Amino acid sequence: MTQNLKVYRHQAPVVLESGAVLPQIDIAYHTFGSLNEERSNVIWVLHALTANSDVADWWPHTVEQGRFLDPEKYFIVCANVLGSCYGTTGPLSVNPATGEAWYDDFPRVTIRDMVECHRILARHLGIDHAYAVIGSSMGGYQALEWVVTAPDFARRAVLIATGSHTRPWQAAFNETMRMAIEADSTYGERHPDAGAAGMGAARAIGLLSYRGRYAYDLTQPDAEPRTDIFPRRVHSYQRHQGKKLMDRFNAYSYHRLCSAVDSHDVGRGRGGREKVLRSIDIPVLVIAISSDLVFPPCDHADMADFIPRADYHEMHSEFAHDGFLIEYMKLNDLITDFFNKTSSK
Amino acid sequence: MTQNLKVYRHQAPVVLESGAVLPQIDIAYHTFGSLNEERSNVIWVLHALTANSDVADWWPHTVEQGRFLDPEKYFIVCANVLGSCYGTTGPLSVNPATGEAWYDDFPRVTIRDMVECHRILARHLGIDHAYAVIGSSMGGYQALEWVVTAPDFARRAVLIATGSHTRPWQAAFNETMRMAIEADSTYGERHPDAGAAGMGAARAIGLLSYRGRYAYDLTQPDAEPRTDIFPRRVHSYQRHQGKKLMDRFNAYSYHRLCSAVDSHDVGRGRGGREKVLRSIDIPVLVIAISSDLVFPPCDHADMADFIPRADYHEMHSEFAHDGFLIEYMKLNDLITDFFNKTSSK
Repeated sequence: MTQNLKVYRHQAPVVLESGAVLPQIDIAYHTFGSLNEERSNVIWVLHALTANSDVADWWPHTVEQGRFLDPEKYFIVCANVLGSCYGTTGPLSVNPATGEAWYDDFPRVTIRDMVECHRILARHLGIDHAYAVIGSSMGGYQALEWVVTAPDFARRAVLIATGSHTRPWQAAFNETMRMAIEADSTYGERHPDAGAAGMGAARAIGLLSYRGRYAYDLTQPDAEPRTDIFPRRVHSYQRHQGKKLMDRFNAYSYHRLCSAVDSHDVGRGRGGREKVLRSIDIPVLVIAISSDLVFPPCDHADMADFIPRADYHEMHSEFAHDGFLIEYMKLNDLITDFFNKTSSK
Repeated sequence: MTQNLKVYRHQAPVVLESGAVLPQIDIAYHTFGSLNEERSNVIWVLHALTANSDVADWWPHTVEQGRFLDPEKYFIVCANVLGSCYGTTGPLSVNPATGEAWYDDFPRVTIRDMVECHRILARHLGIDHAYAVIGSSMGGYQALEWVVTAPDFARRAVLIATGSHTRPWQAAFNETMRMAIEADSTYGERHPDAGAAGMGAARAIGLLSYRGRYAYDLTQPDAEPRTDIFPRRVHSYQRHQGKKLMDRFNAYSYHRLCSAVDSHDVGRGRGGREKVLRSIDIPVLVIAISSDLVFPPCDHADMADFIPRADYHEMHSEFAHDGFLIEYMKLNDLITDFFNKTSSK
């Protein structure tokens, strides 16, 4: 992942939405391709919960010639989000005021704080406009926020399997993940592995919603007819998924990012969502995944209905929310078509 | 709950499916109404995961005159399941071999073990036949097992929001709940509160599936338009649900019961489910709940299709799996009608 990783150190305080202040921040990012002379070919990709700035790594077959993130054509930028652990400032970073890692003292962050950090990086890179901003899931939250808070920045936006706000059932998943982390009594200790088992359970909770019933039943069947009482094949799958995240993430970042998700409501403090969505005047491609449990197609209706230039598509997939990572060919067709349609005008 | 609770101590060893032996067992049970002279009016109710033997308490408006559990007409029996903590032997019971509570040494139990204990109680009560066996969710598992393993016992069966086997996604929920319990490092300690916080998180996981998106969004909305970043109303709901179970259950029982759920496959070791379901020759009412996420209507298809005398209904409800506890009027119509139809023959 670290190949081609660049880090920008912003040596000025950043005031978060909560009022907390970070004395300085690092922003880790990847770029692919080259900025053209007109500086008009930037595609800014916003990543989801536990991903990182290396789009080519976590979104297979997208940063390739002929795809919607074609590096021959576009200058692709992706930055690790605030609060994460892939180079951007987060709970494991050193708090300059104490000389020690923040751990659980790291402040709560919001989607709006994340977007503010992306903007700081864009200014540093001399990028005033983007050909497009693209995000799925929590990445879609950031893309939407960016479009709303800086209407002149992006020429178009692609929002995939996401929402204008985090609904109660989704927030219940996030709270439950935090409960699992906090139930691990090592959470709160000042070392990187604190709360790791709790985070493993939390990840397993997330997976239940990302994959959904059909994909589980399809990919984790037991041998039929069953003869053994225990264990079930899916048991080791859940443990394995928890373990995988324990090897690459930390409970403090996971806890903060789940909270950031719950902070999301594009209409919060702005007079409500309808008003805000109606104010968007760029073309926006909204893609829902047919089998998505966390962000079902119906949850995209407000974006599809209120954003004046929205182009809505329901993409068929059996992989639920994770379909956005898996169905790259279908996404490629939809997004390429959208780029062509909106560029010829 | 303890009012009218009776306990039968079976002073003989019970060999579990796993091969483990319980030297003796207590079976706690409730009865409502009176056994008639012909001993033909028994309705045996099988309870779900964290319920108990007091049907009148956990299944409101069912044990009433004119309802399908009319105590004027029927002799209703319900026993607390093996491994639970409402009077029947479980992890907090004393292991006669050590004189101390079992805690995590309590053996794994299966649905088949639970039914074996119910049969022991039935023999003790002199009950050879039941007018009906009725169960929802894990209670349906037990009812189906009972019908299959003692074809002469029940004259009819009612299976609500349940399945012929626990599917991978369901087993993934159960494994994830166990992961949350085990992430609580107090789990394993020899006291009743060990693992309580983990169990609270586990309960919150369960709730996500029992209630589902629609019911959450309906009952736990935030004030609109939102102005505060945190917290969300649903956060305290999840914590409250976890806390409620911590006040009335223990992590060892919860862990064992979730495992018992995963053991369920009516065709396991019997040549597969189709063969077993086709062998059932009593009338069986199968009721699915339209919005049920854990046991969606399609998961009832094998029971509806293969059980020769199955009568299948999809009950409309917006309360997902919990609909079986809430929609007592709709259930009453369906079950009363089924009783009438099958009694007149």
